Order: sequence, then C-alpha cells, then structure tokens
Amino acid sequence: MEKVHNFSAGPGILPAEVLKQASEACLNFDNLNLSLLEISHRSKNYVAVMDEARQLVKDLFEVGDEYEVMYLGGGASLQFAMVPYNLLSDHGSAAYINTGVWATKAIKEAKILGNVNVLASSEDKKFNYIPKGYTIPNDVDYFHCTSNNTIYGAQMKSFPNCPVPMVCDMSSDLFSRRIDAKQFDLIYAGAQKNMGPAGSTMIMIKKNLLGKQTRKMLSMLDYQVHAKGESMYNTPPVFPVYVSMLTLRWLKQNGGVDWIEKINQQKADLLYNEIDRNSCFVGTVETEDRSHMNVCFLPTKPEYEEQFDKLTKQYNLSGLKGHRDVGGYRASLYNALPLESVTVLVEAMKEFESKYAH
Amino acid sequence: MEKVHNFSAGPGILPAEVLKQASEACLNFDNLNLSLLEISHRSKNYVAVMDEARQLVKDLFEVGDEYEVMYLGGGASLQFAMVPYNLLSDHGSAAYINTGVWATKAIKEAKILGNVNVLASSEDKKFNYIPKGYTIPNDVDYFHCTSNNTIYGAQMKSFPNCPVPMVCDMSSDLFSRRIDAKQFDLIYAGAQKNMGPAGSTMIMIKKNLLGKQTRKMLSMLDYQVHAKGESMYNTPPVFPVYVSMLTLRWLKQNGGVDWIEKINQQKADLLYNEIDRNSCFVGTVETEDRSHMNVCFLPTKPEYEEQFDKLTKQYNLSGLKGHRDVGGYRASLYNALPLESVTVLVEAMKEFESKYAH
Repeated sequence: MEKVHNFSAGPGILPAEVLKQASEACLNFDNLNLSLLEISHRSKNYVAVMDEARQLVKDLFEVGDEYEVMYLGGGASLQFAMVPYNLLSDHGSAAYINTGVWATKAIKEAKILGNVNVLASSEDKKFNYIPKGYTIPNDVDYFHCTSNNTIYGAQMKSFPNCPVPMVCDMSSDLFSRRIDAKQFDLIYAGAQKNMGPAGSTMIMIKKNLLGKQTRKMLSMLDYQVHAKGESMYNTPPVFPVYVSMLTLRWLKQNGGVDWIEKINQQKADLLYNEIDRNSCFVGTVETEDRSHMNVCFLPTKPEYEEQFDKLTKQYNLSGLKGHRDVGGYRASLYNALPLESVTVLVEAMKEFESKYAH
Repeated sequence: MEKVHNFSAGPGILPAEVLKQASEACLNFDNLNLSLLEISHRSKNYVAVMDEARQLVKDLFEVGDEYEVMYLGGGASLQFAMVPYNLLSDHGSAAYINTGVWATKAIKEAKILGNVNVLASSEDKKFNYIPKGYTIPNDVDYFHCTSNNTIYGAQMKSFPNCPVPMVCDMSSDLFSRRIDAKQFDLIYAGAQKNMGPAGSTMIMIKKNLLGKQTRKMLSMLDYQVHAKGESMYNTPPVFPVYVSMLTLRWLKQNGGVDWIEKINQQKADLLYNEIDRNSCFVGTVETEDRSHMNVCFLPTKPEYEEQFDKLTKQYNLSGLKGHRDVGGYRASLYNALPLESVTVLVEAMKEFESKYAH
C-alpha cells in the first residue's frame, strides 16, 4: 500500500512504531497473553504505564516534584470548566486572552463560574495574529492563554511575565518546541495532537494550587482528588494513556524537545517559504505569529481549489482541508509528521504552479 | 502460548475477534491506510462508527427515538455528578438506594448538589443482599439504583414500579440479561465490563428529560449539549467508542441479549452449584440476589487460600482475587467469558477439594 501523508489537524499523525506497539498491545500486552484492553488498571503492569506516562511529562518539561501530572478523560473541553472550578474564587476574577475558537470556549465556561476579564482579543482580524501589549492585573486569581491556535494557525512565540498563576492550553503545540515550563502554574493538553490518541487529557499543575478552592467540590472535577489518586481515582482511559506514554517515550528516546524543535522548524520553514514564493497560494496569518504546527493558506484564485484538491489526492496528501471558518488549506505539522511529507506537499505546490499559474 | 482464562472484574474480558479487529484498526482502519488513532473524528468513516455505536444500544435495548444515546469520557464516576447536575432541581430531592461502594459514591456526589433521600441500604450486612420493600416518593425528581454490585456480587433481579424518572447505573451487567429498558428514563454504564475498554461511558436518556435544568450549565456536564452534538460536541474517546461498537456488534450478530442471557445463566449456574456443593468454598451473597456477573466466594478455611492460589495459576485462571473489602475470590462472568473458562475453574475447585478437604 502506498504511504499516506497525514496532515490531519487532530486527531493527528502518530509515530509508526507507536502504532505498531499499540496494535500489539491490543492482542498481548507485556507478554501477559492478555490484551491491554481487558486487564485491571490496578495491575502492576498498568500502574507502571501510568507512572511512566506521568514521569515523562516532567522529564520533557524539565520540572520536578513541585508539579503534579495527571491524565483525565473528557478532553481539553472539560478543562475549560475544571480550571475555573478549581482556581476561580467566589468573589475573584480570572484574566483571559481570546486568540481563537478554543479560547472563546474556555472564556464561556469560566464566565458560568465567575468574573472574567478578557484582556485582549484578536477576533477583529479573524484571529490571524496574537494580541500583544496587554497588562495582566495583579489581583486576578489566574491568567489563561492558549499557546497555539489550531484552527486559524497563530501561535504565541513568547509568554508574558505574569504576576499571578499562569494557565495555558497547549493542546496543539505541546512538546513541539522548547519553552520554560516553570513559567506556568497549570498546563493542560488534549492528547490527540502531539501526544497520543483522543480520549485522554494531560494536566500538569503546581502542587501549591491544589485544594485551595472553598466551594464544595464534585469529586470528578477536583484536581486534588485526581492528584491524590495518582490519576486512578476512577478507572482511567487505559489505552489512550498507554499510547500517550509510548508517544512521549518515542520523543524522549529520540532526543526530546530539542531534537523535535529543530525538525519542526525545518518543516515550517520549508512550507512557509514555498507559500511565500508560490504565486498560487497565500498565507493567512501575520508573519511573526505563524504557527509551526498548523499552517493555514489560501489559493490566490478560488478556481485553483478544485484542481489542487485533485493533485493532492494523486500525491496521497491527506487531511489538508482548511477549517470551515478559514477555508483553503491547513497543513498540520505535528511532531510525528516526517519532513518527507512536507517535501512531497511542496513538490505538489510547485507542480501546481507550473501547470496552472497564468 | 497457553490460553488465559480472564475473570477480571473490570476492565474485563472482550471477545477475541473484537480484539483482533481493534488491533488491526490501530494500523489500518477501513482500508484508509491510516490508523484509527490518527484520523479526524469528523471523517465520514468515524462518524459511521459513532452512529452505529449509538444505534446498537437502541437495537439491543429495543427502544426507539424517544431515547438519545451518547458516549462520553470521564467514566461512570462522572455520571454520579452529571445525573444530579442535570436532573436534580433547585429545591427538589432525589431518591437513592445504597447497594454498594458505587451507589455510595453516587449518593455522595448528589448530596453536593442537593437533597438526597436514601430510601434503603444493605450496608448493615456488607452489601450482601438487595434491599426490598421500600417506597419511592411521588415528589422526588428521580430515583437512582445500581443494577449490579461489582464488588460484593449482589444483583437486582427486578426493578421497582417507579412513579418518578428511574435512573440506573448498569456498568457491570449491561446487556447481560433481558430487561424492559422502557422502564428506565436514564441508563448509564462505564464501558469497561460488558461493553468495551475503559475510556468511554454510555448514557441513554429519554429526550423529554433533556434541557429541563434551570441552573446555568457547564457545557461538558450538560446532557443536552452532548445530545445536540451527537456525542461529538468535543473530540470523543475515538478508539474506546470504536471497540465498544465492535463489542455490541458482536453481541447483536450472535443473537443479542436473549442469546447471551442463556449462556450467562449456564455459566452462573455451573459456578454457584459448585460453590454450594464444594466443602472448601462458600458464597457470600444471599441466594436470591446472587449476581450472574460477579460471583464472590470465600474459602471455608483461611489456609486454603494459598494452596488454591497456586492451583489457579496452574490452570491459567486470572483475575480471581476478591476485592479487598470482601476477600477470597471473585469470578467475573462477563458476556465475553466463554463457558469453557467456568468449566476449567470448576475443575480446579473439584481438584482442590479432592486434594485438600479433610
């Protein structure tokens, strides 16, 4: 079978060797002669998986035991609610910046639970840039940002100096580049982009933020309950966490974030250079804020779309259709996407220009 | 490799052909030449999976479009909170019966959100029977029960006439026996027993219960939001739902609940008859309430335990250790467990008696 180049925005591409191990574990996990899908999550073999999955996050972020790592079900969308449920006090406020659809949803959930101060927004230009120059108040309970905008393709290249706890949704660029994780008090990420399959969400929280809420807490929404239970307060999403562990192990064994950042930079440079050079395509995002993970571009003439769609099929390029709010194309260059796939996409773009540009 | 007989209480045994298909889908799903773990949940191939998974629940329960079926992350434990969050009104009450650890947890969460009336409890005898003869008040918002007690091995053999909406946690005996599903207004079940792997929870709710809550609802806790989104309000637990779909398809294709009920009856009869006959073991649950899914029994002398543990290893019997609250043994006879495995267990019990009974 011919290789498919998978540019899907999420769930997205995973390393081939991880998929192979995942497939094997469905039949025979750890030589137990039992499937991973039918053994107790309290078995020592699985507890070892969960422990490694949690430790790998700390290793890759280079942080110590001042942080607690957990894996929960429900997706990043559940974190939009859990963050204010745990951190927003009765008469306090939270500060958010609005940089896209997911930030908008996070703001909506926080407003249900308390006061929200939206410091800045890029909605005026369809979220095609990252707002700068805002001031984070000293007296809010926390500041929330979204490091990368999956839909519109804008990415925060730096993070503000923050006088209050800083919370970041890193769902679509987790472990894609070097950042100083110690700046953050809470990082969360739905797994289904750089980290694993859909079905689990990673949360890393500073221990001193746990248990500070005064309201009576529903157990499943309480970070402290899950921290105490070491992500096993209830049955965890066993298989999704296992595949996330394999993916993070793959990243660490190959050289970690420093290694992947270089490759991600090469992939992004290659594609953005072609977009800027090619007369048939145009990027949608302000140059300085262009995402290295989700590259959005439009055809310069609407009639190009049908022809380019045909060509991408010939080249086995999959998952390139842009989000309906943006149109055109979105190439997601997640960690597991090889440079080769970007090379093939660029080849297709060049061929397209030579055939159709007038 | 030798066959392992998997009596695990959950995550529990799944059909071998389902595990094979799950393993294949990790490498190549639907001949797309892509893994199920790395494609969009909005792709037509996956939307078909979700649609079939939802429809199969209605088919197996023999109900129509007056019900909505959804699959959510977070486990049945999240439902302990979502049920009262959606159904318990501001000044209303809910009625519960307490038949074990999970019912106790469900009651605890409901009490955080409102008034709870515990109509009956079997805690006085370590949950080894099902309370009867209680009266459900006319004026409560709903009545909640747990159809099967996974830890202590007691099972509701019939359900009360209920003057208010009836909610049931069927996590550990879903689709194991014929019931009249139309009696219930909301049924939920963590998948990881009879239905699939850990990571998704099935909820079937009567449509007329949706959207009745007056409080401002967090989106991810609102059944109406998930119903409108057809279980795709946010990225669902893609792989767990797929394996649940395969498991339900397996059940339906083989003859559905009528077919499996007969086999489950045979398995339970075989094992309970041996427990009652064998001088080395004794059942822990009142005869009339004995679960057909989780069979709990103790050795008649404590010193038997070590020897019997050795023997079960020789016979490749796995997952038999009783819950720490009960001790002894628990054999979980979920749908996918073949009769043959119970035959082997009974053989081991007979051999044990002939060697060690004095």
